Amino acid sequence: MHLKSYLPILDWGRRYNRQTLASDLVAALIVTIMLIPQSLAYALLAGLPPEVGLYASVLPLIAYAIFGTSSALAVGPVAVVSLMTAAAVGRVATEGTADYASAAILLAALSGLMLLAMGLFRLGFVANFLSHPVISGFITASGLIIATSQLGGLLGIKIEGHAMPELLSSIWTHIGDINSYTLAVGVVALGLLLWIRYDLKNWLSRFGVPKDVATIMVRAGPVLVVFLTVAWSALVDLKGKGVALVGEVPQGLPLLSLPSFSLDTIQALAVPALIISIVGFVESVSVAQTLAAKRRERIEPNQELIGLGASNIAAAIGGGYPVTGGFARSVVNFDAGAVTPAAGAFTAVGIALATLLLTPFLAVLPKATLAATIVVAVLTLVDFSILRRAWSYSKADFAAVALTLLGTLGFGVETGIALGVGASILIFLYRSSRPHAAIVGQVPGTEHFRNIKRHKVDTVPGLLSIRIDESLYFANARYLEDLVVDQMAQNPGLTDVVLMCSAVNAVDMSALESLEAIEHRLRDNGIRLHLSEVKGQVMDKLKDTGFLRHLSGQVHLSQHQAIRSIVDTRNALAASVGSGPAVAAVA
Amino acid sequence: MHLKSYLPILDWGRRYNRQTLASDLVAALIVTIMLIPQSLAYALLAGLPPEVGLYASVLPLIAYAIFGTSSALAVGPVAVVSLMTAAAVGRVATEGTADYASAAILLAALSGLMLLAMGLFRLGFVANFLSHPVISGFITASGLIIATSQLGGLLGIKIEGHAMPELLSSIWTHIGDINSYTLAVGVVALGLLLWIRYDLKNWLSRFGVPKDVATIMVRAGPVLVVFLTVAWSALVDLKGKGVALVGEVPQGLPLLSLPSFSLDTIQALAVPALIISIVGFVESVSVAQTLAAKRRERIEPNQELIGLGASNIAAAIGGGYPVTGGFARSVVNFDAGAVTPAAGAFTAVGIALATLLLTPFLAVLPKATLAATIVVAVLTLVDFSILRRAWSYSKADFAAVALTLLGTLGFGVETGIALGVGASILIFLYRSSRPHAAIVGQVPGTEHFRNIKRHKVDTVPGLLSIRIDESLYFANARYLEDLVVDQMAQNPGLTDVVLMCSAVNAVDMSALESLEAIEHRLRDNGIRLHLSEVKGQVMDKLKDTGFLRHLSGQVHLSQHQAIRSIVDTRNALAASVGSGPAVAAVA
Repeated sequence: MHLKSYLPILDWGRRYNRQTLASDLVAALIVTIMLIPQSLAYALLAGLPPEVGLYASVLPLIAYAIFGTSSALAVGPVAVVSLMTAAAVGRVATEGTADYASAAILLAALSGLMLLAMGLFRLGFVANFLSHPVISGFITASGLIIATSQLGGLLGIKIEGHAMPELLSSIWTHIGDINSYTLAVGVVALGLLLWIRYDLKNWLSRFGVPKDVATIMVRAGPVLVVFLTVAWSALVDLKGKGVALVGEVPQGLPLLSLPSFSLDTIQALAVPALIISIVGFVESVSVAQTLAAKRRERIEPNQELIGLGASNIAAAIGGGYPVTGGFARSVVNFDAGAVTPAAGAFTAVGIALATLLLTPFLAVLPKATLAATIVVAVLTLVDFSILRRAWSYSKADFAAVALTLLGTLGFGVETGIALGVGASILIFLYRSSRPHAAIVGQVPGTEHFRNIKRHKVDTVPGLLSIRIDESLYFANARYLEDLVVDQMAQNPGLTDVVLMCSAVNAVDMSALESLEAIEHRLRDNGIRLHLSEVKGQVMDKLKDTGFLRHLSGQVHLSQHQAIRSIVDTRNALAASVGSGPAVAAVA
Repeated sequence: MHLKSYLPILDWGRRYNRQTLASDLVAALIVTIMLIPQSLAYALLAGLPPEVGLYASVLPLIAYAIFGTSSALAVGPVAVVSLMTAAAVGRVATEGTADYASAAILLAALSGLMLLAMGLFRLGFVANFLSHPVISGFITASGLIIATSQLGGLLGIKIEGHAMPELLSSIWTHIGDINSYTLAVGVVALGLLLWIRYDLKNWLSRFGVPKDVATIMVRAGPVLVVFLTVAWSALVDLKGKGVALVGEVPQGLPLLSLPSFSLDTIQALAVPALIISIVGFVESVSVAQTLAAKRRERIEPNQELIGLGASNIAAAIGGGYPVTGGFARSVVNFDAGAVTPAAGAFTAVGIALATLLLTPFLAVLPKATLAATIVVAVLTLVDFSILRRAWSYSKADFAAVALTLLGTLGFGVETGIALGVGASILIFLYRSSRPHAAIVGQVPGTEHFRNIKRHKVDTVPGLLSIRIDESLYFANARYLEDLVVDQMAQNPGLTDVVLMCSAVNAVDMSALESLEAIEHRLRDNGIRLHLSEVKGQVMDKLKDTGFLRHLSGQVHLSQHQAIRSIVDTRNALAASVGSGPAVAAVA
């Protein structure tokens, strides 16, 4: 039982049959064709030799098939994580050196260990602090940076940097070096890819090609563009005309290795590895959950951490770099009918075969083709509508999105995401430190109490009911103190104050001291303090303290009972001194 | 009106008369006598020449008298801020140099400007993030560090460091250099001071000395010890025996100056200045509020920021170092009958006179006397009971206190307080990211709904009511999604889910997306989603979105009405298809 929860393969593996095998094989074939150019391209984006992208698409897929819980998630190199890898590794090594490649391997290993640890210690909730608006702003900004960085490959110029200002100034500096042949290949490849993506399907259907076949042809399109430009390159010797080619690629897979490491490099890569882990996890889990919901399946986030952790450790062993679940390829995998994680393992076999067989062709592949592949792939990431939606919903959410977007564009991925997360948390803390509180009265004919400013309600003279709309903790405890004192000053005839605690989910030690201070102030002025609708978990805490023992008023189950009891006590008191009821009983 | 709120002196100044003058003068005299040895001692603690303590006790008091709101707060150099000054300034300059003194002046100026800005922009709430348990742990640790650091003065050895490990190793290294004459002076001064503090009053009362006189004598005690050791030092030439004396002190006040500054030093001192500002403000305001409550007065925290800001700027102009409101001297001021901030201004005049007249005597004062003064003063800061109280109230509060205490002892004041604040915020975020939620039912005979696990309540078959005990925001939005899906799986016959939102004080954009996801999941399974007791401010937000338009169920004013309406709808439906009521109506 216990082992099965850590090894989902033991569960679905038992039910595996010929039919699921057939479905998985078809899906794997389609994903393999799609993944080959993408893997090469993303490795270049990460500043690595293109074959590293293929290495990162073999072992990680097998590891995910064993440990992952999503039947459709396709793991491998993705655009945003490749950009983050380039930013992180670029800080400790120079692109093109052996140190650079081994730092990328180390980054994958660190990220894998962190994900694994987070999964084993059930720390998946940490990812929740990356809010949806922040991640949207981050992805959009990353897409823009990636597309801009690919202008180098498309124009045949060398540009550097991982944030907009450096990229743009780098382009400006080298604008004179444009190679017209590279530009031609780039424009043709880009045009073809866009045409394949947006028009090919309609065009084929006009010729009576069945929809299924058309869909597969659209997906295989990028491979076609690769073949076309390889042929172009070989026929007219593009290399001789100054077009950058992929060049000699070692045939076959690298020997399995464990990353070498120095303590300094580990220290330098630890924070980027953590950010990559969390960003990768959030992206991956949201894709997996979206697809799972369509099939009424369930994703176990903590097990996903283990699955992605294992994938990244596998990436390190196989000489790759950080991987995660990709959106586009997972959707393709899902649509193509993958029913178990085995589809991923079959994809791995496909990529391994490609690595063995296709490398001679890749030597003459123009890099501009890969740049065009990336540009088309990341266009789907750019989505400014989040800004509009956030603006119309709440200015605070908008601030977080805008800060993430501008921060990422201006200062790079790590600063951008740190700004976004920091801003979200500060906004939340600021809000909860100035809690909303309402004076409430009884909705006539019910036992329900609402804000006197928003509803037509009944109140009792000399009795003030304050509903506190926030948990009480150190950052807002003093605020409540001020509020009660202000209200005390505004209501001279006050005899009873009821704090309605229906929205108080916790009271920490600072807040307890504030409650005691409030009690003292009221008592000094001859006013009783009551509590109502105190939640079970809060009551448990308060019971252990002296606060309830010394409370001048009482704790009531409901606000309604509180009012009734206070009015009854007053009337009894009034009767005992011989006068009539002081206040008409309510409800 | 507006000016008056920024210049409280315009308010109390108009009501000033001979009687208040008399009270203030008496209080000022007593505080002056108390402040002289303390000011000298704290300046030494800050690594500054002793006279700087006197300079810091003149202009700041006058500035506070003009801008402050507390009638009893006595501003000046205090122990903890002096320690923090030493830690901050020690990082940019060497003790004993002119650079060191001007860095201390700059620190006061920066701190003053920050406090002023916080006051003008009404940012006083920032101080709330320094929770009471954290500040208690911090003060206790600071007291221990200060007392330990004074062993150098008491033993006549040179010790260095601003955290326990350095201090202890420094003492260990120099333990052989103890000067027995210094030790003698230190032990005598310490013994006398302790005796004066704890026994003198009883002793005097046994001789029939009136209580008031005895109290004043206890307070003047430290000055007596100063005179005694000055006499001892002069008579037997302690200097010749290797006892460290205060030495030549410039007579009179320094010329008014504006601090010189370099951008590098400002950068290095900015963070410490902010921490000193906040710690000083929190300490000062809590003293002021405690005393104000005794007289039914009110402290305006944002105006206090302005008052303390002005005091620190005055400290910089007068050649001093950061100041704040001190606990012990404020209590003395209050007990001695200070009724307006003018008492502080009179104290300033007293200190100024002392600076002019007493400096020749101070030249032969042994530093050991001042060390003893500090040790006795900080003993009151050390209070381990906060650990016990926090432990018994909540482990989370205890963790914050313990971390602050150990962090401060081990790594110094800035790291300690950063750890404490960081831990408090993380604990709060962690808690709110795993919100409590309860399945609720109706308390029989009422319209009140409570947790089915804690109360005997009625529920309706096929209808699930979930009370969410937290505001919904990015960090916990997914948690609610998981909860509802789990409940859906556990309750096969479910037709309606009511989310009781009485404790939901805000719904951010991520949470809105989660609510939409929950709605979709439930709808896919033929279950309607209802909301009840949605707060006004949350309703305002939701109204602007499509969520309410597409909601499968309804929004009900109260949970009671939600249940009634759902049951009525069911019965109507059952009646229309010809069968009897499906469920007995409740309430």
